[in-house]
Amino acid sequence: MQLSSSLLENAVNEFAKLPGIGKKSALRLVLHLLKEEESDVKKFSDAIAKMRSEIKYCKKCFNISDADLCDICANISRKQKQICVVENIRDVIAIENTQQFNGVYHVLGGIISPLDGVGPEQLHIDELVQRVKNDEVEELIFALNPNIQGDTTIFYIQRKLQDLPCKITTIARGIAFGGELEYADEMTLGRSLTNRLPVENYVK
Amino acid sequence: MQLSSSLLENAVNEFAKLPGIGKKSALRLVLHLLKEEESDVKKFSDAIAKMRSEIKYCKKCFNISDADLCDICANISRKQKQICVVENIRDVIAIENTQQFNGVYHVLGGIISPLDGVGPEQLHIDELVQRVKNDEVEELIFALNPNIQGDTTIFYIQRKLQDLPCKITTIARGIAFGGELEYADEMTLGRSLTNRLPVENYVK
Repeated sequence: MQLSSSLLENAVNEFAKLPGIGKKSALRLVLHLLKEEESDVKKFSDAIAKMRSEIKYCKKCFNISDADLCDICANISRKQKQICVVENIRDVIAIENTQQFNGVYHVLGGIISPLDGVGPEQLHIDELVQRVKNDEVEELIFALNPNIQGDTTIFYIQRKLQDLPCKITTIARGIAFGGELEYADEMTLGRSLTNRLPVENYVK
Repeated sequence: MQLSSSLLENAVNEFAKLPGIGKKSALRLVLHLLKEEESDVKKFSDAIAKMRSEIKYCKKCFNISDADLCDICANISRKQKQICVVENIRDVIAIENTQQFNGVYHVLGGIISPLDGVGPEQLHIDELVQRVKNDEVEELIFALNPNIQGDTTIFYIQRKLQDLPCKITTIARGIAFGGELEYADEMTLGRSLTNRLPVENYVK
């Protein structure tokens, strides 16, 4: 694509670096911004630069936060001794949206994946172990993606905590609501049989 | 969507104002930027702010340009007496990509549309008339979208130029390449019959 201005070309190229945005969409977005008021565009670019430079992470759970402690950790009405362990903040948002969880979180910042060069020392695992010890945590709920990396991470953390009286659980894996048995993979269907529930539990 | 940081929320809201980007995509883009280097994000936001505040328009054709005259108007190998009239710079880019046109452009900056409150005085029509007069333009090719507003705009400009010896044409309207006759609307099919071409023209 030939553009008549290097300023325009620069902005388009920067937009096109974002995931899922190609050159044509980038041009559409840039031309949209060009029609907006200069002050509005300034607000847009400032919001992004400020977010990147000033954002903080909660000292306790490593969720994104404006203060030293995030709103969830600072909320005394939430069960501070029940920690849900997640990979990233997107998972926190997804679980918060269910409105089914009233404990606190711990964001690992990734998952153990030797093939991608991610080892336990790059994740917030030591901080989690410290937290379990210091805060006398009663339950650790793992909400990691159900794959080899997720299972490895659970296994690794579990071994580090084996001497502590903390209950360790993981979110249920099974057939998704609205899913169809015949299309489920064997692994999922097999696990959902092994971990079958009494019907009274299911209906609750 | 509940977010744990007002900085994050602000950035997501700004992204979600862009056309075709909803809250979920905005969050994905913002979290992507959060993982990038701070200097790269600064480059991104600067490119956008700079583009909006410093961009210039060609004094002759109102195309986007870094200098007073755009590259196309400043190019002496292009036919300066053949002007293609378009609605916006996206159309310039589309026509340039065909590599079939060697004249210059005039960007109207919109199209006459009383329902949207756009009258001729808001467009660069007077400048076009002046240009035709001063530069002894030989041909004006209208490349506007084929609808009522486009036709109104052509009609309006044509009347302003009726005393000048300038040839006025419009791009051909007909069945698109690869299109199928049975799915064409009556208007298009009717016009393509009225404006039928001798086969020798077509093959050229």
